[in-house]
Amino acid sequence: MTETAPENDRETGTAFMPKFDAAGLLSAVAQDAETGEILMLAFMNAKALEATQRTGEAHFYSRSRGKLWKKGETSGNLLRVESILVDCDQDALVLKVTPAGPACHTGARSCFYRALTDDGLEPAE
Amino acid sequence: MTETAPENDRETGTAFMPKFDAAGLLSAVAQDAETGEILMLAFMNAKALEATQRTGEAHFYSRSRGKLWKKGETSGNLLRVESILVDCDQDALVLKVTPAGPACHTGARSCFYRALTDDGLEPAE
Repeated sequence: MTETAPENDRETGTAFMPKFDAAGLLSAVAQDAETGEILMLAFMNAKALEATQRTGEAHFYSRSRGKLWKKGETSGNLLRVESILVDCDQDALVLKVTPAGPACHTGARSCFYRALTDDGLEPAE
Repeated sequence: MTETAPENDRETGTAFMPKFDAAGLLSAVAQDAETGEILMLAFMNAKALEATQRTGEAHFYSRSRGKLWKKGETSGNLLRVESILVDCDQDALVLKVTPAGPACHTGARSCFYRALTDDGLEPAE
């Protein structure tokens, strides 16, 4: 009979056991640590997670470019990670961040700058 | 020469053109409309999105069960959708919601109830 130590229960335990999906990715949401605004959503592979933990700056995995991506490496708009929250089944993270500038490559503070209405999209408040 | 009407530019336009991934899914983050707390992260296929828009209650697609899932259908802990935000490349949504009860199936208010530290996980504040 196999027993799982309580700390290794994925939902209730204290062991970090990230559950990467079939593509080797976790979902990660960056949220402004001060205002609570959701800035962006991206994916992390094990390498991106390791680099984020090691450096304290958000790293992601770009699905379109197929490579590790340090957020703000080119633009300077880094996301300093203040804390990381983990969800019940350990396949998603919330990064509480302090942004060095606009989080979106369009220059918007957040990538979520439009609201969905019955008539399409309009600027979010 | 093909021209794209300005409203159909995915990043700057007013047309909703959701960009489903290879599995036919968008990422969706549920955020408490009042407190700003991130409650959960899940996925939506076209059907889940349609059902969410039609009913005003959050529906998702369960990757593990491979089917449409009305959040709270069993527990009663529905998420009433107050507004939906769309990101720059239209592959992720933020649902601003009013939760009818704990959003997490564990009974926690949010699925993100643990913080990642150097020593593993600990209860989030």
